[in-house]
Amino acid sequence: MSILIKNSTILTQNERRQQLHGNIYIDGQEVVQISKNPISIEADYKIDGRKKLVLPGLINTHTHIPMTLLRGYGDDMVLQKWLEERIWPVEAKLNSESVEAGTKLGLLEMIASGTTAFLDMYFFEDTIGEVAEKIGVRGFLGFALIDSGTPQYSADDLMPQCEQFVRRWKNKDLLQPAIAPHGVYTCSPETLKKSLEIADKYDVILHIHCSETRKEVYDVQKRYGERPVGHLKKYGLLCKKMVLAHCGWITKNEILDIKKRGTKVSHNPVSNMKIATGGYAPIPELLEANVPVGLGTDGAASNNTLDMFDTMKFCALVHKQHRWDPIILPAQTVVDFATIGGAKCLGVEKEIGSIEEGKKADLIMIDLKKPHLTPQHDLISHLVYASRGSDVCTTIVNGKPLMLEGEFLTLNYDDILENAEKCAKELIS
Amino acid sequence: MSILIKNSTILTQNERRQQLHGNIYIDGQEVVQISKNPISIEADYKIDGRKKLVLPGLINTHTHIPMTLLRGYGDDMVLQKWLEERIWPVEAKLNSESVEAGTKLGLLEMIASGTTAFLDMYFFEDTIGEVAEKIGVRGFLGFALIDSGTPQYSADDLMPQCEQFVRRWKNKDLLQPAIAPHGVYTCSPETLKKSLEIADKYDVILHIHCSETRKEVYDVQKRYGERPVGHLKKYGLLCKKMVLAHCGWITKNEILDIKKRGTKVSHNPVSNMKIATGGYAPIPELLEANVPVGLGTDGAASNNTLDMFDTMKFCALVHKQHRWDPIILPAQTVVDFATIGGAKCLGVEKEIGSIEEGKKADLIMIDLKKPHLTPQHDLISHLVYASRGSDVCTTIVNGKPLMLEGEFLTLNYDDILENAEKCAKELIS
Repeated sequence: MSILIKNSTILTQNERRQQLHGNIYIDGQEVVQISKNPISIEADYKIDGRKKLVLPGLINTHTHIPMTLLRGYGDDMVLQKWLEERIWPVEAKLNSESVEAGTKLGLLEMIASGTTAFLDMYFFEDTIGEVAEKIGVRGFLGFALIDSGTPQYSADDLMPQCEQFVRRWKNKDLLQPAIAPHGVYTCSPETLKKSLEIADKYDVILHIHCSETRKEVYDVQKRYGERPVGHLKKYGLLCKKMVLAHCGWITKNEILDIKKRGTKVSHNPVSNMKIATGGYAPIPELLEANVPVGLGTDGAASNNTLDMFDTMKFCALVHKQHRWDPIILPAQTVVDFATIGGAKCLGVEKEIGSIEEGKKADLIMIDLKKPHLTPQHDLISHLVYASRGSDVCTTIVNGKPLMLEGEFLTLNYDDILENAEKCAKELIS
Repeated sequence: MSILIKNSTILTQNERRQQLHGNIYIDGQEVVQISKNPISIEADYKIDGRKKLVLPGLINTHTHIPMTLLRGYGDDMVLQKWLEERIWPVEAKLNSESVEAGTKLGLLEMIASGTTAFLDMYFFEDTIGEVAEKIGVRGFLGFALIDSGTPQYSADDLMPQCEQFVRRWKNKDLLQPAIAPHGVYTCSPETLKKSLEIADKYDVILHIHCSETRKEVYDVQKRYGERPVGHLKKYGLLCKKMVLAHCGWITKNEILDIKKRGTKVSHNPVSNMKIATGGYAPIPELLEANVPVGLGTDGAASNNTLDMFDTMKFCALVHKQHRWDPIILPAQTVVDFATIGGAKCLGVEKEIGSIEEGKKADLIMIDLKKPHLTPQHDLISHLVYASRGSDVCTTIVNGKPLMLEGEFLTLNYDDILENAEKCAKELIS
């Protein structure tokens, strides 16, 4: 399959952060040519790029996709009460059918709002992978481990199932397995060690919630004599393979450890604010230490969208206000987090995260002909401070158009909404 | 003109915050009938309300509409440098032609994103009024006063022109004049006193920036021996007619004064965060004191949109995070700010801010058939945490449809965007 995008403004996000006006030719999975001059070639799809902006697809480095089914089911509640009264009772009733419905809804929302790759952590991750494979979104499938067991597997079954899962999804094209111990407070040192063993054996990503709330840090320190980052370090999980989600309550010394070990951080500002964790991930200090930082929406139950544009704006603004510094985290830095930074978190910066010849064709187009995107003094500014997910008109993953001028090519919009509504109602009934 | 909305979910925002499924009949400027049962009547417009949510039009209680032309022109800068190097030099070049272009763009953005009424503060406010009148948006036109003069009038001309402005716009249908001394630090006590005199003489709203930054509070206290709220109190401007914008740095005693005097507050969380004022308007305490609170976007140069849905989400989240309290400012409270609360700020809660028989027909419709609005566990939650301006499909002001299923009836989309782009480029050249 080939695609030719003509006469568009292209935000490459390459090393030089080059913006140019021109044409892109995609063949198979790759960007074959980027040129200021016309490209005379036939293509299966020709896209008129005038008054559009082409940029790398956004990368969501922390989410729980099927939680779309719980969107708006229990806001404005204290965390523990929310988990105990709303989330956990419903999650206990999950099955592969409901996870499929929630995954389809989540992927539809992602494609519609310009996300082309995700790092997930949930139950029934096989189902999530099957749906993502069929629809064509790039994903890292985090097999969730919790010592008490999951809605899918008993505690004893978890580790063997996890290894089997990794074997099944290893060496796929679009999808990669990841091992996702839920947290230091929900997984024993034994579980953490086993996670690392499997991750090393198969060379896959590790993903964990880390230092999200002050309570977590306090509880872990009390129990293990170490804060979460130190605890992970002790067992070897503070390593290059690890993507830490949240890090709202980490210290300067912990940043040094994270840096030394080559660990990555996924920043989730909207969820942190909505849950009122009180923590502000020290993003400027992580940047200074050259730690790869990506952005995550977290699950839709604590956001309540998967819209990475929304997350970019919150990211830029929350740190300015917290530090009394309007210069901190300028728009370009935040766009970096959502694109090439996310790719670095996932270890795939050579394949995605920027639009360059030879890289995978994961890219999106923004329709600039909108009142809130007029005038166009600064397109990078617009991406962070003015755009919304709904400004995305075209989404291409791995060289395949998934949404083209607002039309979805690999999924049925009406069916997905209807089925998700039905499954969600059943779950909470 | 008459409109019949059929089979819709209606969020009335009436005293009981009633939600119902039914029909609305609008005739002339008013909502004539709301009924759960079918209304058999002919109407000029029949709107199918299925899978739609009808709610009161959103009320933006603080903005500078023509600043849309400066959207994205100078982000990530220190306030003083931003004003001195970007905003003021461009504003000095404003004329009624550029203000007209910026106003059309701003009103288009408002209508598209569900705002039906605004309180503005700017220069060339006559032009803003003329455009708003023609397009059909409800507005309070704040004639800006600054002691050094404005791009339109010299310092000596300002007060006579202000009074003439008030006379011209008094007793209009959709539009009301307001007097807007820019701030305590830019207007002398003499100017403040004269503003009050005219406001009293003609019974119109007063609007001022108040305690936006810590520096403002410090400077005013140093100069006048009073903080801004005390200073306004001293000259009688802390009164029922006054809408204070920002209040990021007010004390508990000042809240008591604001309460006693019946003064109103416009909260602008996005702008406060972007400018990094460091201040958090004490909204929970203002609520406890029963002070009317509305939401404002501020100008597009410091937001960078006029999207009230965006402002609602920031409002709900920033206070949760700041107070470490996920229960504070629940979604219903924030929806109140954007609707009936805004109406109370402007003293027109008997006319707008809720959908009730006999009130003006200012209402909007949200298309619920969207991935990010599925499933529908809680529509109030969706409005605050998941909706975007682009979910609005229909906007009706004073009984007239301005946008109907995404089509604009009183303005030319393409022309407005093109002209705004041209004017903006000229201004900064």
